[in-house]
Amino acid sequence: MTTKLSRDEFEAKLRAIGEAQYHNNHPYHHRMYQGQCSIDEIRAWALNRFCYQRIIPVKDALIMARLSETEDRREWRERIVDHDGEIDDHPEGGLRRWLALTSQLGFTKEYVMSMQGALPATQFASNAYLTFVQERTVLEAVASSLTELFSPNIIAERVQGMLQNYDFITEESLTYFSYRKAQANRDSNWALDFIDRTAETREDQERCLNALKFKCSMLWAMLDALASAYHLGGTIPPGAWDPQTQTGLLDKTA
Amino acid sequence: MTTKLSRDEFEAKLRAIGEAQYHNNHPYHHRMYQGQCSIDEIRAWALNRFCYQRIIPVKDALIMARLSETEDRREWRERIVDHDGEIDDHPEGGLRRWLALTSQLGFTKEYVMSMQGALPATQFASNAYLTFVQERTVLEAVASSLTELFSPNIIAERVQGMLQNYDFITEESLTYFSYRKAQANRDSNWALDFIDRTAETREDQERCLNALKFKCSMLWAMLDALASAYHLGGTIPPGAWDPQTQTGLLDKTA
Repeated sequence: MTTKLSRDEFEAKLRAIGEAQYHNNHPYHHRMYQGQCSIDEIRAWALNRFCYQRIIPVKDALIMARLSETEDRREWRERIVDHDGEIDDHPEGGLRRWLALTSQLGFTKEYVMSMQGALPATQFASNAYLTFVQERTVLEAVASSLTELFSPNIIAERVQGMLQNYDFITEESLTYFSYRKAQANRDSNWALDFIDRTAETREDQERCLNALKFKCSMLWAMLDALASAYHLGGTIPPGAWDPQTQTGLLDKTA
Repeated sequence: MTTKLSRDEFEAKLRAIGEAQYHNNHPYHHRMYQGQCSIDEIRAWALNRFCYQRIIPVKDALIMARLSETEDRREWRERIVDHDGEIDDHPEGGLRRWLALTSQLGFTKEYVMSMQGALPATQFASNAYLTFVQERTVLEAVASSLTELFSPNIIAERVQGMLQNYDFITEESLTYFSYRKAQANRDSNWALDFIDRTAETREDQERCLNALKFKCSMLWAMLDALASAYHLGGTIPPGAWDPQTQTGLLDKTA
């Protein structure tokens, strides 16, 4: 049996995975924040990413159901509030803030929420995340959330780059991200503590590293699918949103 | 409530979905059988497709577990025998025949079976199929198998085209497909009978049509992912098989 890593060593290995495999390394992200995407490529990104946003509170509920300590569930519950909002809807939750972005890009709320225009590959990747948090240990489920260690950086690049380079993007439509930065810092610190105290062996720690790799691979696969359909000249799968027909856009001449 | 379709009308609608959305329409398939793929593109296809082959007997076991009639389960059991083989392994099952193909293409059996080189998108699509047959009604689960109505044609194109155009492909390495044609005809006729007698309303029939669309979309997504990574110049996701490094190939200078 291999010796358990110290907390610093373990955290360094987690961060190395992010360095190499997080989707801030993906060409589609680079093109997005450097102003090289067309409005339709940004639309496709926001439309598809909604599928992922939509499952976040669901996967969090699944994880919460598996946490045995009240204190842990209370902490995790904050994540669901972040995305679903409070009952009086003030402040609004992350899902609504995401829909503000897709609306500014011209989509009707109904079209986005129906997910009929999303790429099947996006839906398969998002659903793989749901399956993962149900089928793996709760330790792995929590570890898969650790992409939040890296999200403040990608968010900063994205927001700054998009505001600077696209006149169809305003600060108002990006409020989702201004909330997320603080939330991600709070959540990833807690998750890091949780896996540090819950992982008992080096094997447990390896499972955590693999969980983080899995999560990086699903975020990566979503950008691959977007690039293929809307940039590289691959197919637009039957039924997926097609910039040619402008289905789902409020003002078809936009 | 809409009127139930006659068997002929229903079958016509199912066949129309295949006409439009089955993966024989995908450019990667066209390039494959027309001899335009490199050996590495064929390798990537066979390697990734193993992920799908591997889950076939698993999804069939899940469906069989949900069939309540002994007669139906007996019929369905044949599918599992086709892929897993008999205990004395004669004739060999489909999984072994698939491994004969990947071996001829130069991969070690261990590498293929580990699935470490497969694209995450392939794994997400395959697993989506497993989730589908568990979560939907048994009627939808059976209907999703109806892509077999269309597979004899794609198999004929594939086998003829590949034998004609690639000297690294021999008839022996394609025995998987010669078995599949007869099996697919038998199975799709039975499945068509089953859904015809089980679908009670037009709404049930619509669910069957959507199940077939889902199945087409997962087969399509697998070819999209291959095209992106190995033909269109998209990324090779971190960890996936890379023709540059020839990981997993027995003879690295091949």
